[in-house]
Amino acid sequence: MSKFWSPAIRSLVPYTPGEQPKVLDLIKLNTNENPYPPAPGVTQVLRDFPTDRLRLYPDPDSSKLKTALAEYHGLDNSQIFLGNGSDEVLALAFMAFFRHNKPLLMPETTYSFYEVYCDLLQIEAKKIPLDSEFRINLADYDQENGGIIFANPNAPTGIALPINRIEQLLQRHPDSLVLVDEAYVDFGAETAIGLIARYPNLLVTHTFSKARSLAGMRIGAAFGHPDLIAGLERVKNSFNSYPLDMLAVETATASIADDAYFKDICQRIMHTREHTTAALTGKGFKVLPSATNFIFVTHPQRDALEMMQALRAEKILVRHFTRPGINQFLRISIGTDAEMAQLIDKL
Amino acid sequence: MSKFWSPAIRSLVPYTPGEQPKVLDLIKLNTNENPYPPAPGVTQVLRDFPTDRLRLYPDPDSSKLKTALAEYHGLDNSQIFLGNGSDEVLALAFMAFFRHNKPLLMPETTYSFYEVYCDLLQIEAKKIPLDSEFRINLADYDQENGGIIFANPNAPTGIALPINRIEQLLQRHPDSLVLVDEAYVDFGAETAIGLIARYPNLLVTHTFSKARSLAGMRIGAAFGHPDLIAGLERVKNSFNSYPLDMLAVETATASIADDAYFKDICQRIMHTREHTTAALTGKGFKVLPSATNFIFVTHPQRDALEMMQALRAEKILVRHFTRPGINQFLRISIGTDAEMAQLIDKL
Repeated sequence: MSKFWSPAIRSLVPYTPGEQPKVLDLIKLNTNENPYPPAPGVTQVLRDFPTDRLRLYPDPDSSKLKTALAEYHGLDNSQIFLGNGSDEVLALAFMAFFRHNKPLLMPETTYSFYEVYCDLLQIEAKKIPLDSEFRINLADYDQENGGIIFANPNAPTGIALPINRIEQLLQRHPDSLVLVDEAYVDFGAETAIGLIARYPNLLVTHTFSKARSLAGMRIGAAFGHPDLIAGLERVKNSFNSYPLDMLAVETATASIADDAYFKDICQRIMHTREHTTAALTGKGFKVLPSATNFIFVTHPQRDALEMMQALRAEKILVRHFTRPGINQFLRISIGTDAEMAQLIDKL
Repeated sequence: MSKFWSPAIRSLVPYTPGEQPKVLDLIKLNTNENPYPPAPGVTQVLRDFPTDRLRLYPDPDSSKLKTALAEYHGLDNSQIFLGNGSDEVLALAFMAFFRHNKPLLMPETTYSFYEVYCDLLQIEAKKIPLDSEFRINLADYDQENGGIIFANPNAPTGIALPINRIEQLLQRHPDSLVLVDEAYVDFGAETAIGLIARYPNLLVTHTFSKARSLAGMRIGAAFGHPDLIAGLERVKNSFNSYPLDMLAVETATASIADDAYFKDICQRIMHTREHTTAALTGKGFKVLPSATNFIFVTHPQRDALEMMQALRAEKILVRHFTRPGINQFLRISIGTDAEMAQLIDKL
């Protein structure tokens, strides 16, 4: 604490990222990273990049990557916003769209950064409980609001909503911005990007950190009506003009170019997830139905925190959340088949 | 404009970065980029980097780069904050320290992003005019304030303040945070980093975009008392946990490691600046005394905007600001000797 701190930051409770251990001989299943490397073209980018160009500022619009994403998703560049990871994209979206004098609706159990943004930006967060099966029930969101945000699939539950339910929500709330955070969508859920053309109140966010194996490069995107993208650009250009460096743009573009590799590693992770789910279910665990690259598991007789600590002693990192309601669950990222075999063995 | 925009963003006037042309056969003297490539070690980083690691999140604290900077400047890691370019560092500092209910004092003519941050964050900006020689007079800042910010050397004037004047200001305002933006300090001014140990109200920001030829990688830093750094970390971790990607950390660290190269290119740029200043003075231009990698020049008989347009027709980009008081000046970045010879010839 310091007298120089702005009053608004004195009571902040910042987001706590999952541990990034500095030792390397761990099985790291705690931050939903991809067990497979980025597309081979990414290596080529680094090997061939003309270093002399780094003395220049990057294109503030990252047009090359926007164009690649526009082609990939069948959109126009004006429907795409890019930022330094989807965390930055979300932070800028909260500034651009959720600072109204009405509460922002969000699931009680979801990505915990959402309430941190609300805290930072003095937005009232109204948390809607999940149902008894840990699912988001969108009918519960039919109330006065200054915006709605949820992750689909949700985290840390892993459960996906069907797209027609999201469309109904968009229809029922034409005056509310609905932000669908699709960080994990590539592992078995359906994207809402196809709804953008018809719903000017929809903003969808993606990340290159999970399915595209580029967490180390910090690339996120938002897709929506050009008026929404223009709002994001206004805030971005009032905050930091060049959030994507040249190598982030080049590596992300190389990833988009290799769709066969992308689809293959997503398939492999989904296959490993189903195999792991079956094995843990056979050992008496309850595993929520996941459409992500992680599973959320609990055991009727065993304490989750103790299991997490015991796994850590065996050099396997998983994530445990202390919040009531989910504190008997572990969130386990899907690694390679070999890594998951070790996990299943230790559990 | 859209009904979904937060009220606070509707009247924003975002920062306008200098043009980044997509054609390459221009002499680009408009955004104060370094004419020399980054240190040779930077190329080696890209050639050798194990791409597989990019699937993992980076260290959220960028400890490797903090340690390198701590050793370089004789500081502790707890006195260093890192961000995605000094623009992001400044934006987070405005959030952390300047949201008090008193005006933030800044020069009337300075880096124009400062007032954009104020606009975004609803901070009252009080602009203090420069003196008749375009210098900052720190005695004018002896008034009620919620913080003080200026660039040293200042931009776009290029003029540096002596460090003892900054120390006097720190002594006269023990309850105000004083932010000294040293983006251009390596081209002939004296850094205030040496004052940090004695003045807990001092925050100094640096960038890797100018003297270190890494504009393309987006790396900025702040130096100050650990309590100030803790405030910045709180805001950062409530906004975006991982603003520096792995390659930004590695390339910046490689740059710090090669001090001989760094000092050599700074010397070359200063030498070219003095030569260019002498040549333009000989042609009747008035050139403000610069301690930066740019010069701010005016001609008693020639219109600045017309000169800018004429240079552009000759494929030389320089920057012109339309604001009254400085609209008869051009800001010209220092390029190579060959580039400056062409500029002098065309002028």
